[in-house]
Amino acid sequence: MRQENIKVNNVVRATETTLPRENYVSSEIFELEHRNIFSKQWTYAGHISQIPKIGDYFLHSYAGESLIIVRESADTIRAHYNVCRHRGSQLTKSDSGTVKSFVCPYHQWSFALNGALRRAPMMPDKDCIDYEKLSLHPAAVEVWAGLIFVNLDPAPAESLLELVGPPSECVQKLQPENMKEIVRDLLRVQANWKTLLENYLECYHCAGSHPELGIAFDIQSSYGQTADWGGSCFIGGEPLRKGFRTVSMTGELVSKPLGLFAEEKELPAEVTDGMGLLPVLTRVIFHLDHAIIHTMNPISEREVEWTTRWYVRSDAVEGVDYNPDTVAEVWRATNAEDKELCERNYRGVLSRRFISGPLNPIAEGAVRPALNLIEKLLTY
Amino acid sequence: MRQENIKVNNVVRATETTLPRENYVSSEIFELEHRNIFSKQWTYAGHISQIPKIGDYFLHSYAGESLIIVRESADTIRAHYNVCRHRGSQLTKSDSGTVKSFVCPYHQWSFALNGALRRAPMMPDKDCIDYEKLSLHPAAVEVWAGLIFVNLDPAPAESLLELVGPPSECVQKLQPENMKEIVRDLLRVQANWKTLLENYLECYHCAGSHPELGIAFDIQSSYGQTADWGGSCFIGGEPLRKGFRTVSMTGELVSKPLGLFAEEKELPAEVTDGMGLLPVLTRVIFHLDHAIIHTMNPISEREVEWTTRWYVRSDAVEGVDYNPDTVAEVWRATNAEDKELCERNYRGVLSRRFISGPLNPIAEGAVRPALNLIEKLLTY
Amino acid sequence: MRQENIKVNNVVRATETTLPRENYVSSEIFELEHRNIFSKQWTYAGHISQIPKIGDYFLHSYAGESLIIVRESADTIRAHYNVCRHRGSQLTKSDSGTVKSFVCPYHQWSFALNGALRRAPMMPDKDCIDYEKLSLHPAAVEVWAGLIFVNLDPAPAESLLELVGPPSECVQKLQPENMKEIVRDLLRVQANWKTLLENYLECYHCAGSHPELGIAFDIQSSYGQTADWGGSCFIGGEPLRKGFRTVSMTGELVSKPLGLFAEEKELPAEVTDGMGLLPVLTRVIFHLDHAIIHTMNPISEREVEWTTRWYVRSDAVEGVDYNPDTVAEVWRATNAEDKELCERNYRGVLSRRFISGPLNPIAEGAVRPALNLIEKLLTY
Repeated sequence: MRQENIKVNNVVRATETTLPRENYVSSEIFELEHRNIFSKQWTYAGHISQIPKIGDYFLHSYAGESLIIVRESADTIRAHYNVCRHRGSQLTKSDSGTVKSFVCPYHQWSFALNGALRRAPMMPDKDCIDYEKLSLHPAAVEVWAGLIFVNLDPAPAESLLELVGPPSECVQKLQPENMKEIVRDLLRVQANWKTLLENYLECYHCAGSHPELGIAFDIQSSYGQTADWGGSCFIGGEPLRKGFRTVSMTGELVSKPLGLFAEEKELPAEVTDGMGLLPVLTRVIFHLDHAIIHTMNPISEREVEWTTRWYVRSDAVEGVDYNPDTVAEVWRATNAEDKELCERNYRGVLSRRFISGPLNPIAEGAVRPALNLIEKLLTY
Repeated sequence: MRQENIKVNNVVRATETTLPRENYVSSEIFELEHRNIFSKQWTYAGHISQIPKIGDYFLHSYAGESLIIVRESADTIRAHYNVCRHRGSQLTKSDSGTVKSFVCPYHQWSFALNGALRRAPMMPDKDCIDYEKLSLHPAAVEVWAGLIFVNLDPAPAESLLELVGPPSECVQKLQPENMKEIVRDLLRVQANWKTLLENYLECYHCAGSHPELGIAFDIQSSYGQTADWGGSCFIGGEPLRKGFRTVSMTGELVSKPLGLFAEEKELPAEVTDGMGLLPVLTRVIFHLDHAIIHTMNPISEREVEWTTRWYVRSDAVEGVDYNPDTVAEVWRATNAEDKELCERNYRGVLSRRFISGPLNPIAEGAVRPALNLIEKLLTY
Repeated sequence: MRQENIKVNNVVRATETTLPRENYVSSEIFELEHRNIFSKQWTYAGHISQIPKIGDYFLHSYAGESLIIVRESADTIRAHYNVCRHRGSQLTKSDSGTVKSFVCPYHQWSFALNGALRRAPMMPDKDCIDYEKLSLHPAAVEVWAGLIFVNLDPAPAESLLELVGPPSECVQKLQPENMKEIVRDLLRVQANWKTLLENYLECYHCAGSHPELGIAFDIQSSYGQTADWGGSCFIGGEPLRKGFRTVSMTGELVSKPLGLFAEEKELPAEVTDGMGLLPVLTRVIFHLDHAIIHTMNPISEREVEWTTRWYVRSDAVEGVDYNPDTVAEVWRATNAEDKELCERNYRGVLSRRFISGPLNPIAEGAVRPALNLIEKLLTY
């Protein structure tokens, strides 16, 4: 499938392209992607700080599904499909809250925090229905360094830990479990999700379109770095510009140091670590003082939701230790620029004349491997 | 097709469910329903008081079709498809009015009240076209106790009278032909029409969601009553709560007694009568002082219009004999609650994980027979 | 295919109709029309006065495609698909402007005015990509009397000049190349494009619906005239009412005479000339003092955009020689009326009961030949 770039007389010939137009505009292919990709991949859902107490829950929307993420016990978090096993009603009126059990607002069937059906009112007899067979449909859930990941498939081929491995020493020192979310931006992008993915996977466009990112990041070295990405997971952060301690317009910290770094006498010149999941992108980036998590949620073949969350340490105080708009400044601007680029790109892809041209072997090296992964998953 | 509830060791096992997900989300099945159900069933269109004089007409929208309901003579009401036989233009600019003939606003072809083509301007010769073959397409229309019913099929398998039978003695005494419409509420419900139907056919959800209905109606006895429903027609009203004379928040009358009841010295404790048509629901409910008519109009597999009309006796005077908001109070609140329940239910049905669970044998007894009817009609 | 009107005992029998309902409501047929008709036909795009200088360009939207119309040299105008040959992004941020080359806003690939790829930044080597194979996709473009026409097919079966022939002596004297656009009205009509086409091709509806047109035009003689139309091109203007010098509410000129007519001592009683292209209508009408150009742009099987542009001589001065609202008055009113007629017609066509009736052999003579052309093109 993949056309590898080949060398003729020692010259790299750019022969790789993105996908045929059909892949970006067909609702049938989107449906196939739902079955083979969206329904089987690990993606980020939220942070443990959202549900500290037993019975705390929040709703998570992904690929047309609504999941209830709930703390069952100090050690256990569950993900249930938000679908009553009686007639299918969504189970909650609020997007988050604290419950003892989930009581369906329609006919008051109630489900324990672990999803077991507890009570179906007015049944003539306790043997009338098989309670054991009527638990809420589960999704898989795993917590990695305080970050909650879900998989629509209740029995994924691979656990998240197998896929990503344990957090690095640096990540452990940052103590991501002791962070809190301070800003969340949602953008509805009128483009195929793969158009947005391609955009994220290359920084060929950065110099021309991302002045803010250009201030904070070392764009040149990012070309080499993204070239290493591949497979359904990658490890590492985004390289900062020389002299920058964190991603900000000045390079100065925008909040208190995370985790154990707060106790160090001398702060390191730069902290950048993280991980990414593909092909539906989850991108976690840690810096010394805050973390950024990007996620995408495919809505249809023509629309994708791009969400960015910003985190600082739990005990940081707004207005004293950080200003949310300052923390979000660089990526918020970058996201808005990317939305415009992707939508303009997608309008072109909608042309019946569109055929993808050659990818730049240097600056777009991470694009084709991800598309290869998608093609492979679709032909399973 | 139907899984009847079976008894094991004298215990009723709830084995009936609603339909497979496909039936609620597929546009192909909706199209099939249009052909086999919507196009062949009797539904309520309006009241004779809307068109008392010859030439009076009103438009009626149902299942994507626009019908002209017109009084041709003292004895005859007609239903014509609102489609000019020349190039297909809709024939009227207003939703109701009084005409001598229908003159198409496009090329002024004119049609008599009975649908016959009268004049096609500028034709070179009177024999140029076959006037006899160019009458408006007819729909079937029947009047039952002053209520106008239509059937998109001009030659229905069964007449409405054959289906429903003549009005009961009680209904006759109420003189529905001497009512007038005082309020009409239209709700666009973002759900499949069958989701709304299922909602109406059971009161399992009433205790938890309908405080107003619970005040006026005897919900407990409604379980047994709806269990009798079945087939494409049912007879009877909705049982009121003990001590309630009519459906109102206090139980007191909200308008003057209907028909001959106004002349009685002593009013009966309760009047509740009516009829219903299935599977696309028309529900007529008579009480001592007013009548309620619910109808549904399927828009697409994802949307249905729910209309409720309230009627009082013709000579009742607004502000003196009745207040429209008081008459409408109980069902207006109930409708709003049901819209929310159905839309939440339907969002769950849209989940690819949805499978219908067991229906409550006691409280949801009328649901499955109606779904059986639908399945039977679809496989005709 | 075509049912010709036949004579029985010397009486013309109206046996021609419009098309089966499917042709107006099916997205599959619309897609086929895109391939066989929209993608191969000449249509009007704009006037040379919009791009007088080298590098001047404007965007033109048609049938879902965006074209860049650009002046490459004094003698050459080009039409390029607005799709970068790298990843497909649209190439311009503005709808019109002046450029030295087109620099894609995404990755700064740059294209010469003639569409040749000039530069792809950061490629490892100049031989890395085949610049010659990465020119912008061309569309065909021809200028006829200063009017710019395009064809989505870069190699049309027939040139515009072969199709239309050279401008008549009268048109040459009017010097259309020395006009300027003073008003442009866009209407989104909720109807199939053929419903709008049928509307334009007959004046059977004019007496009943177009009071303004009836003042300015000789409607009676238009029946005979449109009967001559046929094929994919027709020549001629629209006949004015006796005593009218131009199309206006008074019959008086609404701007200075066009072209060489301005130098004549005595103005002719009436000037009416022009041309039309079918089946997707371009209609150019010249009068003594201004020109009108109608175009249609099919959006979907249920929507079409109708654009009318008005032109006066280049050196006419607004407020002195002409008032834009006066110039546009008759057709602006007529367009609004036609939009309403077509949308009402289309709502009727959407009825599952719609079947087209007989066309008037006198007054709708031009409708069926155009539909025959469409049927022929679809079965190619």
